[in-house]
Amino acid sequence: MKIKLAIALALGAATAAAWAGDVEDQIRFRQSAYSFLSWNTAKIKAQASDHPETYNKDEVIAAANAIAGVANSGVFEKLYGAGTDKGTGWKTSRLKPEFFEKQDEAKEFNSNFIKEANELQKVAASGDVAAIKTQFGKLGATCKGCHDLIRIRE
Amino acid sequence: MKIKLAIALALGAATAAAWAGDVEDQIRFRQSAYSFLSWNTAKIKAQASDHPETYNKDEVIAAANAIAGVANSGVFEKLYGAGTDKGTGWKTSRLKPEFFEKQDEAKEFNSNFIKEANELQKVAASGDVAAIKTQFGKLGATCKGCHDLIRIRE
Repeated sequence: MKIKLAIALALGAATAAAWAGDVEDQIRFRQSAYSFLSWNTAKIKAQASDHPETYNKDEVIAAANAIAGVANSGVFEKLYGAGTDKGTGWKTSRLKPEFFEKQDEAKEFNSNFIKEANELQKVAASGDVAAIKTQFGKLGATCKGCHDLIRIRE
Repeated sequence: MKIKLAIALALGAATAAAWAGDVEDQIRFRQSAYSFLSWNTAKIKAQASDHPETYNKDEVIAAANAIAGVANSGVFEKLYGAGTDKGTGWKTSRLKPEFFEKQDEAKEFNSNFIKEANELQKVAASGDVAAIKTQFGKLGATCKGCHDLIRIRE
């Protein structure tokens, strides 16, 4: 019963996304980018911080490349258009309406996010687990700073 | 009314994902990876194929890096576990149940997908638009081949 309900609800959401215009696409693509990003940050957190005995150099390099790929893909410039604080992508947008008055601050977080992601990509290639952990912390700080500024808490 | 309904349905889907276990996470992460991928392939299609007058070298390089980031991130190895033909991530899984008997064929498509994505990354850096278009076609063929094999048509 629960599963049937969940499928019906999810199908409903997908249908809603289909009739929605460009704003809904922007929200869905950025939710996808961040969700894919979170899968990759979780790998680095697990292997360089929480369980260093599981560290796998190639996996961490691949995860860091994926993170840099997201950071440099233009999410901030292309997927935060007018109206994207309202509406539904895969789920309801959590963007605070005041984002549109705080774009300079958000832009600075984004620039730092790109800088730290690119640095993480370099550090991951070195294979120095302690340095990866430190650099991962710097990246995480840019994420958190921006979340506190523009994202509605769940 | 339509918007309220869409938000209610999407919230329902998000709640469903919250109680779902690992299978649902795998489906949601792979849907995110492919959705982020499709945003980036659309940029290359637009700029190197459909509207070459809009070609922007840096954007195409960034998109190709993002695509390679997804291709090499281990989606095939980590997000196609047992049971992921059933269940709901952001939406209901479209994986054909027969995937689990066709893993060797799917694996070969995935290997080719990685190879062509890595090649696209190199070709994008060259700035040769005609070569990018050709290489993008090769990448697309690996996508389509695998979709025909393992993905339920919408």
